[in-house]
Amino acid sequence: MSGLHVAVVGATGAVGQQMLHTLEERNFPIKKLTLLSSERSAGKKVLFKGEEVTIEVATPDKFEGVHIALFSAGGSVSKELAPEAAKRGAIVVDNTSYFRMDPNVPLVVPEVNEEDIKSHNGIIANPNCSTIQMVVALEPIRKSYGLTKVIVSTYQAVSGAGAAAIDELESQSQAILNKEAFTPSILPVKGDKKHYQIAFNAIPQIDKFEENGFTFEELKMINETKKIMHDQNLQVAATCVRLPVVTGHSESVYIEVEDENVTVQDMKALLEKAPGVVLQDNPAEQVYPMPADCVGSNDVFVGRIRKDLDNKKGFHLWIVSDNLLKGAAWNSVQIAESLVKLGVINR
Amino acid sequence: MSGLHVAVVGATGAVGQQMLHTLEERNFPIKKLTLLSSERSAGKKVLFKGEEVTIEVATPDKFEGVHIALFSAGGSVSKELAPEAAKRGAIVVDNTSYFRMDPNVPLVVPEVNEEDIKSHNGIIANPNCSTIQMVVALEPIRKSYGLTKVIVSTYQAVSGAGAAAIDELESQSQAILNKEAFTPSILPVKGDKKHYQIAFNAIPQIDKFEENGFTFEELKMINETKKIMHDQNLQVAATCVRLPVVTGHSESVYIEVEDENVTVQDMKALLEKAPGVVLQDNPAEQVYPMPADCVGSNDVFVGRIRKDLDNKKGFHLWIVSDNLLKGAAWNSVQIAESLVKLGVINR
Repeated sequence: MSGLHVAVVGATGAVGQQMLHTLEERNFPIKKLTLLSSERSAGKKVLFKGEEVTIEVATPDKFEGVHIALFSAGGSVSKELAPEAAKRGAIVVDNTSYFRMDPNVPLVVPEVNEEDIKSHNGIIANPNCSTIQMVVALEPIRKSYGLTKVIVSTYQAVSGAGAAAIDELESQSQAILNKEAFTPSILPVKGDKKHYQIAFNAIPQIDKFEENGFTFEELKMINETKKIMHDQNLQVAATCVRLPVVTGHSESVYIEVEDENVTVQDMKALLEKAPGVVLQDNPAEQVYPMPADCVGSNDVFVGRIRKDLDNKKGFHLWIVSDNLLKGAAWNSVQIAESLVKLGVINR
Repeated sequence: MSGLHVAVVGATGAVGQQMLHTLEERNFPIKKLTLLSSERSAGKKVLFKGEEVTIEVATPDKFEGVHIALFSAGGSVSKELAPEAAKRGAIVVDNTSYFRMDPNVPLVVPEVNEEDIKSHNGIIANPNCSTIQMVVALEPIRKSYGLTKVIVSTYQAVSGAGAAAIDELESQSQAILNKEAFTPSILPVKGDKKHYQIAFNAIPQIDKFEENGFTFEELKMINETKKIMHDQNLQVAATCVRLPVVTGHSESVYIEVEDENVTVQDMKALLEKAPGVVLQDNPAEQVYPMPADCVGSNDVFVGRIRKDLDNKKGFHLWIVSDNLLKGAAWNSVQIAESLVKLGVINR
């Protein structure tokens, strides 16, 4: 076999587009590419490596012969079709939240728990975008110094809510600059009751609210971090906020480590050589990560590292990454690469 | 005496304009109004209560006979002229950072430490915008439940950096929407070496960096909070971030209280009747504070109150206020009102 049969479900979405781009860029060993979507997008043609590929309606039989199926078409599509794909022998890499907390489904960030893919039962879950970039930065710290507590406040881009949210931010921004009226209809959550202005605003709601007052996005960060790091005792708290930024999630993160002798210099030296991390931390030269600078990169950028002024075990960090790439498409393709690299799938 | 002689220094700035508006709105007992500025703005005329007032160049002699002088023209102007005004018998309410940490200068948020104005020596400092809104929300909690730790991540509006920063955000936003080139020249800090895109971005730098890696804005929040609350043992940490928002600072705040039996309901009931606070906290109806909703209000809005999932003494809050009003102009005028109310000054 000289390559793999890969399917992409949700090929026309903001993440799906980035998946195709990343598969191309990484020169992933594809023998055959099947692009699937809802009926609405079926029939459209997409260029992949210079060749036209027609998008087909996603149905169970389309997964016959597929080796790897990358899903990013919403939880309900994954719920219905991921088991169908797995049943037909495909390994599903699912970018939705549907299977993430299923004990039978590994939840994988290759820099952190690549080996977990070996225990798959046909489905591997790709974590939430805001979780991924945080664990990439924190795993080396956890391994070297121990990690006991994480308190994160996020600054999240609208592209995490899909292409329609990008359109809404742009058209709303223009309306406000023109002093024209506008009617929010997508953010903060397409399926929720009320919609609010996102342009020149900050909305402290991402995904729906749960009974305990946390949003589902916040609980994703809390629960997924513990699962990926295999540490149910790790204390994690999150406040997730949507910003008028197109792409690039930022996170203000407070952590407590076990070793009270760690210095900022130690932590910088550690992160400088950590996989998937780029250290951007030079206050004297105003060097720190920003979303506008991270777009298009697969890396996780870390800066503003400070030791807490009161707690010797406390540190503050600022973590930024392209939410469509490391937060979604790149992490999914990276899992596919790991499947090949670790021999879980043979090409 | 049927009223006071009030001077406003920096009358044409973003905060100065709001000060005049607030003095008018509150019907502050003004017998005579003197508007002062740099030579650049002198000669301009401003309407106050329907009458034209000509702005004069700020010089020491202009403070003769002035009862209250509201300063908001930058630290160097306050450094030079506030002592001159005080020497001539005026009580200065200074909105810059210059005197805030001076042990001889009270740092006042009337809802928290109004009585401190009695110990003035001619100058009273108005705290940093991001500090004020936080302590208004946290003081009732401190008094009722004890407060040991505060970790805040801010989401700050550009108007805190003055009128030029507002212009920069708006023109840059338009350039990006038009796909045109632009050159940042104001933010993050007018006097610093490098300038960065603020439109559709988030900049983790407000004010210049200090030796320990924190910015001056972050240290202001840390040190001013302890001074205002008269508690040097209170642990405070801050990460300050500038957003593409015109007006309205938001804060994601984690606190630890002394009493582990406090519930979210207790805290909501407490904040519902706290002075200067408006509780906006109903997740089921997507009710929470947002900067776009707070503009023009003197209040501090609090929502998203959650008990930490690991620490019984830990709580998370989201605090929003108009940085030009409670964060600056309104708090200054409120101090002036307190001077009259407590009989520190006789009208």
